[in-house]
Formats: sequence, structure tokens, C-alpha cells
Amino acid sequence: MCNEQPIGFIDSGVGGLTVVKEALKQLPNENILYLGDTARCPYGPRPAQQVIQFTWEMTQFLQKKNIKMLVIACNTATAVALEKIKTTLDIPVVGVILPGSRAAIKATKTKQIGVIGTEGTIKSASYKRVIVQKMPNAKITSLACPKFVPIVESNQFQTSVAKKIVAESLRPFTKQKVDTLILGCTHYPLLRPIIQNVMGTEVKLIDSGAETVGEVSMLLDYFQLANDRPTKDREVAFYTTGSTTMFDRIASEWLDEGSVNSKHIVLGEKNL
Amino acid sequence: MCNEQPIGFIDSGVGGLTVVKEALKQLPNENILYLGDTARCPYGPRPAQQVIQFTWEMTQFLQKKNIKMLVIACNTATAVALEKIKTTLDIPVVGVILPGSRAAIKATKTKQIGVIGTEGTIKSASYKRVIVQKMPNAKITSLACPKFVPIVESNQFQTSVAKKIVAESLRPFTKQKVDTLILGCTHYPLLRPIIQNVMGTEVKLIDSGAETVGEVSMLLDYFQLANDRPTKDREVAFYTTGSTTMFDRIASEWLDEGSVNSKHIVLGEKNL
Repeated sequence: MCNEQPIGFIDSGVGGLTVVKEALKQLPNENILYLGDTARCPYGPRPAQQVIQFTWEMTQFLQKKNIKMLVIACNTATAVALEKIKTTLDIPVVGVILPGSRAAIKATKTKQIGVIGTEGTIKSASYKRVIVQKMPNAKITSLACPKFVPIVESNQFQTSVAKKIVAESLRPFTKQKVDTLILGCTHYPLLRPIIQNVMGTEVKLIDSGAETVGEVSMLLDYFQLANDRPTKDREVAFYTTGSTTMFDRIASEWLDEGSVNSKHIVLGEKNL
Repeated sequence: MCNEQPIGFIDSGVGGLTVVKEALKQLPNENILYLGDTARCPYGPRPAQQVIQFTWEMTQFLQKKNIKMLVIACNTATAVALEKIKTTLDIPVVGVILPGSRAAIKATKTKQIGVIGTEGTIKSASYKRVIVQKMPNAKITSLACPKFVPIVESNQFQTSVAKKIVAESLRPFTKQKVDTLILGCTHYPLLRPIIQNVMGTEVKLIDSGAETVGEVSMLLDYFQLANDRPTKDREVAFYTTGSTTMFDRIASEWLDEGSVNSKHIVLGEKNL
């Protein structure tokens, strides 16, 4: 066993960077590999079978890089592919839906919980199923926000266009009050200030990705996989199937860790 | 797989009840079996090899009861026996030292952390080792408090005798300031008000047992072992190798769940 092996993070695009940002903070000794399937993003509207296939391709790429743990830092992929990948791989595999659900159950006082996510995630009803199992009298309002991911991927998440789209998309919550809202897509924390503004400061926003890193940390200890030797120059590497220029711009700004230089890779037979 | 199987909790005596109290709250659907080796308590001053043997005997008793997970709700036993038991059993096994360490790292601002525990736990230096690996510049002050467990087991934990002994035992902390103190023995939360009073309200007390239940909950989900079917009449059963009268008195008062009726059992060749 070599605990210096990296932890792998996969996402449909740049969304999983919100999880990596938290990992960089909470897990200062860990080497990190990130793969965003930007060329085939968004995953949200795709059929489940295709999302499973794409998620497998990302997983296999990182397996060859000898990762010690896999984090599916994408809600859509977690919803449809986590169980299969977890039972197949011989390393721990973590998704983002359970940690987000647990945090929401802890946060809510009225038991009125909102979930926003991609069409794929909302259609899978994964959050709803997990939460209701644990808190049978919870009332869950689920809403697909298919326009959010493209705004983030095109680096428009701080613009007035973003504000307009978020306000329009979240309108159903003016009728259906919730005290807790799960950001059920790892892209959404980049829109957090706008979402908070639309929902009001009294609504607690749950960042599933950030919650996930707590679980990753615990599982590293449980499986005795934590890299406890402090490393000055840990490896943090980024791969994208899409444009490295756009990826690097968003990653450099969001992660606040200096300039990001991602590498372009090709997955699958065709990349689009 | 049958998720209605109980979770097993073991301790040298009544201390693990502080963990069970938290489990009853956080895990409302789970069936719970508790075994306290009261007849051979305290474990703290015993040689490691003997603690390992006693812990095995408790583990084997609960294994026959078909538990789905084992919680070593005893710091002394966790320190010396966790790794061995974890690698031998084919069910998840959780100790109390890692969760307590993680919580202390999160809580401290000055990185001056105190640890109190039995002689066995302090001698093992388990907390110190775990914390320094994760926070290399932390300063750990460890102190064995061998008089605390007997006070709790004899149901004197709310008396003036307890106040006197706690004040005397914790005197070293008047010289060595800490901002966080780990209650590194599951018996100690019963002395919490007195300990808090002696340490001052500004010192954060970390209840390792309570922290552990968060980890249990997460692992139940990770291994898909949670009992998600709400049970009206879940089983909560208590076994002790010592006096059921004393055990029931402490358990009934501490757990606040109605009258506890423990069963007496015998472990090992001789019970004393």
C-alpha cells in the first residue's frame, strides 16, 4: 500500500472543481487528479446508459493513473453510475448524493427541503429517495435547472445573464417554501451568491460537494489510506476532454491556487 | 444482507452508554446491543495484552448475536485492540479515537489540545500520534485521570467527591493552557459539567463518543447497512458482566429512555 497515490475526481466538466477546492483545503497532504469531460458536457440531459458509459471511461482513465480512491464529483453520474462502479472497483468510491442528503437532514428545521439539479439527477429522484428513507415526514421539492451548467461552463456565472436565468429558474420556490436548498449539482456552488440572493438569506444552501470531502477524509482514515506524510510539493493535476483554455481560466479563478495548466485528453471513440 | 441486524457496542463498563445515548438520537431506526464488561472494569490500568483478550471476548459474544457493525465504545480498547479486530472481522469495526481526533483538529484555534484518558489510552499515545500526523504543529498535552472511571462506575459522578477529584486531577492544565480538551474516555462525558466548570467555559470539550456516532452513520450508508425501514419497536438490549442493579440505575438515569433492564452474562474463564 502506498498512501502517496492520488485521489481521483471526475465530473462532466468544471463543476467538480467545487469539490476539489474543498479537498485542497481539507486534505493538504493528498495528491489530486481531476478529470472533467468538458467535451461531452452537460451530462444532465443524456440518457442514463450513456452517462454510465462516459463515467466508466473517465474512471478507467484515472485507474491507469493508479488512484487510491475515486470521487464521483458529479451528481448526474453519482445518481446513475455510483453503485455499479463502487461494486466493481477494488478501491473506495464516493459519490456526492448521500453526503448532501445527510447535511440537509441535519440543517432543516421545517423539514421542507428543496433540491435543484440537472434533469438526470432530478429524474433519478436519488436525493428524494435517500432523504425520505431517513426522514419519512420530510417534504422534498425537486427542480431541474438545465440552464445552470451551460452558464458555468461558458464562464458566465458572474454575469447579469446568470442572475436573470437563476431568478427565473428558481421561481417555483416562491410558492413552495423551503428552509434548506440542496445544490444538487457540483456546478451550482459557482452560482452560489446569486442563488442565495434569489432564495433569501434565511434559506440554508447545502453544497453537496463540500460535504463530500468530509466523507472522503473519514474514509481515508477508515481504510488507512490517508497520506500522513506532509508533502511540500503535492501533485494536483487537471485533465479535460474539452478546451484547456476555457478550463484553465475557470479553474485558475475558482481554485485560487495560482495558474492551472490542464492537459487535453480524448475519451471514447469519438469525443463529441 | 439484512439491515435489521443490530449494531453492537462494547465498553469496559457503563462509559459506552455515552455513545449509545448519541446513537439512540442520531440513528432512530437501528437496533442496538450493548455489552459492558463491568466486572473487569476499569480496563485503563490493565496490560495491553489483557485488554485485547477481554475485548475479543466481548466481540465474540456480540458476533453470536449477529451484529452488522461493531463499535468499540471504549478508548482503552480502541487504542490497543481496534486494528486487530478490524482486520479479523468481516463486518465494519469503528473505534472512538479517530473521530475524536478529527473533531479536536477542527475545533482548536490555538493548536494547543489537551487529551485526558485512562492510563492505558494515554500510555498508547494514540490521540497524540493521530493528531500530530494530521496537524504537525499541534501541541498535545496528555494526562491520565485514573480516578475518573471508578467515580462513574460507582454512580458518584454528580457528588462533591467527584468535584474534588476532577479539580485535583486537571490541575496540570492550569499551567499548560489548551483551547480544546478531548474527553478521551467514554466514561468522562458523565463528568462533563464538572470538567467544563474546572476547565472554564472557553475550553471546548470534545466528546469522542458522540463524534463516533457521526462516523457510524456515514459507514452504515457507505456499506449500505443502514436500516432504512422505520421500526416502531426497535430492539435496544443491554448486557453486563457485573451487577445489573448498578448498571440499570446508571443507564436508566443517563439514557433518559425509561427503565433499563440489563441481563447479566459471564465472559472468560473467570469473571474477575
